[in-house]
Amino acid sequence: MNAKKYVAEVIGTFWLTFAGCGSAVIAAGFPQVGIGLLGVSLAFGLTVVTMAYAIGHVSGCHLNPAVTVGLAAGGRFPGSQVVPYIVAQVIGGILGALVLYLIAREAPGFDLAKGFASNGYGEHSPGQYSLIAGFLIEVVMTMMFLFIIMGSTHGKAPAGFAPLAIGLGLCLIHLVSIPVTNTSVNPARSTGPALFVGGWALQQLWLFWVAPLIGGVLGGVIYRWLSDEPEGEITGRG
Amino acid sequence: MNAKKYVAEVIGTFWLTFAGCGSAVIAAGFPQVGIGLLGVSLAFGLTVVTMAYAIGHVSGCHLNPAVTVGLAAGGRFPGSQVVPYIVAQVIGGILGALVLYLIAREAPGFDLAKGFASNGYGEHSPGQYSLIAGFLIEVVMTMMFLFIIMGSTHGKAPAGFAPLAIGLGLCLIHLVSIPVTNTSVNPARSTGPALFVGGWALQQLWLFWVAPLIGGVLGGVIYRWLSDEPEGEITGRG
Amino acid sequence: MNAKKYVAEVIGTFWLTFAGCGSAVIAAGFPQVGIGLLGVSLAFGLTVVTMAYAIGHVSGCHLNPAVTVGLAAGGRFPGSQVVPYIVAQVIGGILGALVLYLIAREAPGFDLAKGFASNGYGEHSPGQYSLIAGFLIEVVMTMMFLFIIMGSTHGKAPAGFAPLAIGLGLCLIHLVSIPVTNTSVNPARSTGPALFVGGWALQQLWLFWVAPLIGGVLGGVIYRWLSDEPEGEITGRG
Amino acid sequence: MNAKKYVAEVIGTFWLTFAGCGSAVIAAGFPQVGIGLLGVSLAFGLTVVTMAYAIGHVSGCHLNPAVTVGLAAGGRFPGSQVVPYIVAQVIGGILGALVLYLIAREAPGFDLAKGFASNGYGEHSPGQYSLIAGFLIEVVMTMMFLFIIMGSTHGKAPAGFAPLAIGLGLCLIHLVSIPVTNTSVNPARSTGPALFVGGWALQQLWLFWVAPLIGGVLGGVIYRWLSDEPEGEITGRG
Repeated sequence: MNAKKYVAEVIGTFWLTFAGCGSAVIAAGFPQVGIGLLGVSLAFGLTVVTMAYAIGHVSGCHLNPAVTVGLAAGGRFPGSQVVPYIVAQVIGGILGALVLYLIAREAPGFDLAKGFASNGYGEHSPGQYSLIAGFLIEVVMTMMFLFIIMGSTHGKAPAGFAPLAIGLGLCLIHLVSIPVTNTSVNPARSTGPALFVGGWALQQLWLFWVAPLIGGVLGGVIYRWLSDEPEGEITGRG
Repeated sequence: MNAKKYVAEVIGTFWLTFAGCGSAVIAAGFPQVGIGLLGVSLAFGLTVVTMAYAIGHVSGCHLNPAVTVGLAAGGRFPGSQVVPYIVAQVIGGILGALVLYLIAREAPGFDLAKGFASNGYGEHSPGQYSLIAGFLIEVVMTMMFLFIIMGSTHGKAPAGFAPLAIGLGLCLIHLVSIPVTNTSVNPARSTGPALFVGGWALQQLWLFWVAPLIGGVLGGVIYRWLSDEPEGEITGRG
Repeated sequence: MNAKKYVAEVIGTFWLTFAGCGSAVIAAGFPQVGIGLLGVSLAFGLTVVTMAYAIGHVSGCHLNPAVTVGLAAGGRFPGSQVVPYIVAQVIGGILGALVLYLIAREAPGFDLAKGFASNGYGEHSPGQYSLIAGFLIEVVMTMMFLFIIMGSTHGKAPAGFAPLAIGLGLCLIHLVSIPVTNTSVNPARSTGPALFVGGWALQQLWLFWVAPLIGGVLGGVIYRWLSDEPEGEITGRG
Repeated sequence: MNAKKYVAEVIGTFWLTFAGCGSAVIAAGFPQVGIGLLGVSLAFGLTVVTMAYAIGHVSGCHLNPAVTVGLAAGGRFPGSQVVPYIVAQVIGGILGALVLYLIAREAPGFDLAKGFASNGYGEHSPGQYSLIAGFLIEVVMTMMFLFIIMGSTHGKAPAGFAPLAIGLGLCLIHLVSIPVTNTSVNPARSTGPALFVGGWALQQLWLFWVAPLIGGVLGGVIYRWLSDEPEGEITGRG
């Protein structure tokens, strides 16, 4: 069973990266009828809704190193599993970017230099937001994301709705923050496209590891305090 | 536990104001692919969906003085808790506006004079609607919001779905009324941005306290009558 | 208790008409960031989602003469209640249009001659669709609406989800058919605005009673046959 | 009861094709306020959400030959029922296209040569994507669709939410892939419009049978392995 957890995380993070970034690369700017940032936000959110119902019972459906680390900080996930989960997620993110690349390059006018849904700040922020803004929003958004995850999977929250709350939370995060950093809150999702774009995308990638991990830990710790969960014990419906 | 209720209300109202107003300030008018009023409406709605699942079991997740007062009028919330809840909500609304300001000002072209998602009427209404229209729509919308809240948390309503019904209700309210007042139905959400914008936004702020509170009481009282709930008792799943 | 059922239907149909038509009149065509037909479709759908959770346990939340008649034809609603339900729904529809009128006329440039969200065919169809197309789509859409209502409230369907299925069904119906007739599938919703617009809107109103009622009966009867429900008995979670 | 299963599949696939393709043909490109690819994606998704709640308990609500074959490959559906289900689905798809044609042709400017929501690749891909891209995305998307279906109807997934997960999954698939092939993942939905358009649409139809069926089998088999389901037994909540 254990090995299958990791396969589930690979497939789930593949899906998040492929379909989330794919909606941006393929459909956001389609002439006249494109889905825009609203459609991209919904797409990212639905990758989590769909996977959380499909593999939540297999691996917990983290799909995101910041979620794994945040849940560990919040006392909901064993520290010994953190590294293998992150490895699986990064593999999934890279596979998602790879398959997206194989499809997207088949269209006339495709160009990796348009960004390939990479995350960035400063001149590589969609709205030219500074590094400070990028750092701040990634920390705050990932913190609130973990807060939502911890809360909606708490034993007192209504059973079964957590995938909706969490996925719609990711949608909301994108609705606000795409213009700032193209929205990461997920180092694995950021790593995939950056490896294909190279250059600036790789140089700026550090921010999309550092800020989400800080935010994730803050969210996990704050919620744990708020809900009086005992230390040293794995709780929740995770 | 009691103190944690208030912290939950602070965090939740922070989220409502930060992400709701943030979607408007940062993403609504982004060139070509902006999320528009539809995206802003969805964002406000999802702040409530996500928080209601995350902290509904901690504080009831009011996030709104009109909700707190309306639930008290409807017999679902103890009067003694009304003031501390409202204080917590206003603190959250101000913190939300503050963090939004710290991020938004990092973009070229940011200007508080564009409104910063403040609510307004007359010449400060997005569609130039009069004070009468603003008063009327804020009363009616908050009344119906409380009606939805009271009904979907009633003991006979399906368990677990109230956060969806309430959050999607707030989305719907925004879908209709942003052009009229920029949509408040929530004095705490209105207070945050108005403090940063000052001037007209502070002068018009009274309406976004008075009208939602009237509407909230009406909605609470009407639903209580409709559902035959006993007086002098706290009922529902609130 | 009985009288309260009717009040619930009045309030619910008020909400459907006020907020559904309001989204079209106030927000659909707002310059640059308007919600468009997608936002209007979502608004109509969410009026039903919110009310079904709020008053489903009071009146069954029909809000629509075609639903009431269709459920009676499908064996789910007592024939003796059909007329009072329809009266309540029409009152609600008129009140919704009235309050919308009081607000909308406060904006510069408001003009009832723009249609006020009335339903129409031929030269009054948004996309100039003929009477035949209007009749056909209203019959088919109302038939499928009743089919969804009967099915999702069936005793074997998952409990609690019917309000989502039904409201999202109404959203879907609007996503397709607004260009054809401005979408009715609901005589009470059609009657409210038509009374304010008068002229052509009243002359064409017959279609938005006849076609939805035919469709509603078809949907109720077909589903009843499909699900082997016994005749002469009120079944389902209605 | 058995015959009614097939009728349910006919009606459900009629709805998927009529309302999904209808949203594209009638409403996507409506001037200024059209629903765009985001609205079409939502429409396809909601056809499944609504039908899955309405007839899931009658036929399992496949509405799609690739779903039927994939579920059989995944051990969730008896092989003996595969052919009659597919026949019913194709009949439904054709009926959906027929009723849509009867309505759509009533509008000025209607022309089957605009595509009538047919699927295509190369010069008939909305974004001019090659055959390779079309094959790849249809396989991957259908594979993930089956993965979501198998997972969300698994005995350990929360009960009642599968229709939401599956329908929102289909929405997500469209959000990404309409520019590539106009999105099929469903041979029955592809066959209906192609019969009306003829010519290129029929010549390219093979891809929208072959690729979804391959993807469906892959998804069913992979999920079965992941979840350790026993062979030779029908499991899940199907």
